Amino acid sequence: MVNMFENAVIREILEKYKRLWAIGHSMALMGWDNETYMPPKGSEERGYAIAEMSTLYQEMLLNESFVQLVEKGKNQENLNDYEKGVVRVLDREISILKKIPPSLVYEMSKTSEEAFHAWKLAREKNDFSIFSPYLEKIIKLNIEKAERLGYENEPYDALLDLFEEGLRTKDIIGIFDNLRSNLRSLLDKVISQKYYYFNSPLEGIKYEREKMEKVNNEVLNLLNFPWDRARLDVSPHPFTQGMGINDVRITTRYEGYDFKRSLFSVIHEFGHATYELQIDENLKMTPIGGGVSLGIHESQSRFWENIIGRSYQFTQVIKPILDKHLDFTKGYSEEDLYRYFAMVKPSLIRTEADELTYNFHILLRFELERLMLKGEVKVNDLPEIWNQYMEDLLGIRPKSYSEGILQDVHWSHGDLGYFPTYTLGNIVAAQVRNSLLKSISLYDLILEKKFNDIKASLRELIHKYGSTYRPKDLLLMKLGESYNQEYLINYLREKYLKI
Amino acid sequence: MVNMFENAVIREILEKYKRLWAIGHSMALMGWDNETYMPPKGSEERGYAIAEMSTLYQEMLLNESFVQLVEKGKNQENLNDYEKGVVRVLDREISILKKIPPSLVYEMSKTSEEAFHAWKLAREKNDFSIFSPYLEKIIKLNIEKAERLGYENEPYDALLDLFEEGLRTKDIIGIFDNLRSNLRSLLDKVISQKYYYFNSPLEGIKYEREKMEKVNNEVLNLLNFPWDRARLDVSPHPFTQGMGINDVRITTRYEGYDFKRSLFSVIHEFGHATYELQIDENLKMTPIGGGVSLGIHESQSRFWENIIGRSYQFTQVIKPILDKHLDFTKGYSEEDLYRYFAMVKPSLIRTEADELTYNFHILLRFELERLMLKGEVKVNDLPEIWNQYMEDLLGIRPKSYSEGILQDVHWSHGDLGYFPTYTLGNIVAAQVRNSLLKSISLYDLILEKKFNDIKASLRELIHKYGSTYRPKDLLLMKLGESYNQEYLINYLREKYLKI
Repeated sequence: MVNMFENAVIREILEKYKRLWAIGHSMALMGWDNETYMPPKGSEERGYAIAEMSTLYQEMLLNESFVQLVEKGKNQENLNDYEKGVVRVLDREISILKKIPPSLVYEMSKTSEEAFHAWKLAREKNDFSIFSPYLEKIIKLNIEKAERLGYENEPYDALLDLFEEGLRTKDIIGIFDNLRSNLRSLLDKVISQKYYYFNSPLEGIKYEREKMEKVNNEVLNLLNFPWDRARLDVSPHPFTQGMGINDVRITTRYEGYDFKRSLFSVIHEFGHATYELQIDENLKMTPIGGGVSLGIHESQSRFWENIIGRSYQFTQVIKPILDKHLDFTKGYSEEDLYRYFAMVKPSLIRTEADELTYNFHILLRFELERLMLKGEVKVNDLPEIWNQYMEDLLGIRPKSYSEGILQDVHWSHGDLGYFPTYTLGNIVAAQVRNSLLKSISLYDLILEKKFNDIKASLRELIHKYGSTYRPKDLLLMKLGESYNQEYLINYLREKYLKI
Repeated sequence: MVNMFENAVIREILEKYKRLWAIGHSMALMGWDNETYMPPKGSEERGYAIAEMSTLYQEMLLNESFVQLVEKGKNQENLNDYEKGVVRVLDREISILKKIPPSLVYEMSKTSEEAFHAWKLAREKNDFSIFSPYLEKIIKLNIEKAERLGYENEPYDALLDLFEEGLRTKDIIGIFDNLRSNLRSLLDKVISQKYYYFNSPLEGIKYEREKMEKVNNEVLNLLNFPWDRARLDVSPHPFTQGMGINDVRITTRYEGYDFKRSLFSVIHEFGHATYELQIDENLKMTPIGGGVSLGIHESQSRFWENIIGRSYQFTQVIKPILDKHLDFTKGYSEEDLYRYFAMVKPSLIRTEADELTYNFHILLRFELERLMLKGEVKVNDLPEIWNQYMEDLLGIRPKSYSEGILQDVHWSHGDLGYFPTYTLGNIVAAQVRNSLLKSISLYDLILEKKFNDIKASLRELIHKYGSTYRPKDLLLMKLGESYNQEYLINYLREKYLKI
């Protein structure tokens, strides 16, 4: 191992941290297994195991002698960037956990357990009143959490910071306001042009799962997915779980029709996985050996899914793979496929949204979460507010709760404040694209299937640092500016106005 | 939960134990994942994680206040059997760990790591001298371990007790001596009769993996394998891993020919899994919620694999399943298949041995292990001693080390003293058979496919108690006597002399 960590105190911290890392590793595996292979009735015992391990992790992190050691680390002079990163991440984690008492953690986890079941039932019966008491409690608990964590201007600041270190609500407001007006006028033009706004017969065509599995595997081969360090499995909701620098696992799902969903899930998760897989190996088993924030992580998945995956060039490159395994694509031209992949259509369901309208779904959720946390709104009014926003933003109105406020699982899990990171991901992905275009011929490389070259650029720009720098500082250092929505707007204009 | 644990001290112990259980659960999952789905390069980080968790487990078990609590539990009056079991198991585990210093644990695990790689290379190159220095060290460390644990007559006692609580070397010697002479004369007769001693063309027939998977799944369905609480996966070496009472996983392998190997692996592991799955649910997450010893566990796998699985009745019942998926079995009668399943043939490789000659392979290993632990033999003489024993026992002689002393992975893992439990398993399986025959019509139930009735009997006889009683005490209580090889000898005579 290259000696990135020379300071004796830091080395002592890292030695002690290995045990925390091991607990995290085992929890990551349990989480992955929950969604992939665990027999259904194993969930009760698994739940106990995860709860015990998570309490153990907290106790060990807050152990007096460890906290003092981290404190000592903070006071060391001449630390290098990696050493500073180690102290920053641990200090932040300790200070967050110190502020949130175990009783609140317990209450949150108990509530979200019950809320999740209520949410599922409420969706099934299309009855918001089954879920609303739990949402009310979740809001109350999140307000308490925000108060305990402390904030500058409003409770939302405290929660947002948990997911995107250093970012404030006012930053999001500025970014989102600008995005809204620009994307709205772009959307109007796209709709009127009718090139990307159309119905493709491909949406309805059924596929055989075995054939789609072959497509996904071959696309991952094309992208040089390192199978000796990574896996692809199946789960109800696609996700990426890193267990370590040499073990990162992604999943997808097979709905049996509209094959782009399964395909772009794979490419999306491939982007997340590539981030984790390209972190400097010297950072493994340290507190900075993972992706730095949800927004930066999402930028990597969106970069691969949208900027690369939904490009004309990528469509050209993968068409032979599609034609080889999915008979029905043979009757469609490259342009047909490209339009199917890049189509724009206002829709009610976030997870089915295209890369342009997706952001409106996030704007809506951000507004509602802020209202909730300000305590300015009655929970029972939320469905109507949701529907009204939807009509204002996209001109369509949910006809049921499951098409509206009950569509996402997130709030039932007890977390408020991380929806914005999805759009931050889209924004940073466009910034990354802009930066790469200065040094490499991105779209030529796609056509030439030189994906390792693209990966190498991303590695140098973002990946290799892990969590060494705050997300904002990383952007400043490597892109010369912080989160900036202009690049996303320009990218989308360029893509969607040029036919 | 039924109140099996009423004593307040025991309840406090169980409450505290939950965390140890959780660590055990996560280690079980990591172990299973290692052999099934982990990407190969994940092994280094996984190794660190397992080492950290195992040290953590030891520290928590030996934590002063926990040890005192268990001590207090020992002194409680009027404990019921389950409460006594909890104290017995924990006290035993604590006293073992107290005697083995962390430095020895570390040395053992480091040596076995290196020894495993040396063993693989030695096998590949058919060069015992690559492995012998490691075996020498493993012997030395096991002698040290035995000395630290203490023993009555010889070092082997100490190690054997780790795997089969309460059993002594002299018990094994008595059992094995009797077994050897009786099975040897039986084997001679079987060979001379040539009914079970023959070559079946089925051994060489190749199968398609997908078809064999269907056979295995359908056989497990026939046995009412509870898929909502259990799984079947694939691994290089078949095994069973319980994560909890509602999550038990088995594996098999597909070599592509000689389909009985894959099939009987599944049935063998099904027997192990059924034991774990039928432990009283009230014992879950307690120290007595798992199988009691390696010997008793093996009795359950052997009961299903040999006594049920290789019976004429079972062959009749599964023939339609075989014929449905494996075209080639259609040309063979029930009797052909039965003889193929039950065939007897002296062979060099333990894992390929039949139910009669298997025990000779164990006798040989037991003798060699005793020699090693007595320090009476030079490591370099072991291959020749092995070969000589093999010739004496089965009349065949290995031509290479990999057919001889290098065939098993076990010693390279650092463990000496548990081979005898394989034959103990065969012995107890026959005792269980004898007991069941008094109360149920075992072979009729097989023909009627009433496997749940057989399971229910095994549950009452053995499974439900988990580790409540010492293995010997369980046998005494439920079968009226301790380990007794007579039933195995009689069962094998009955089976193999009646044509």
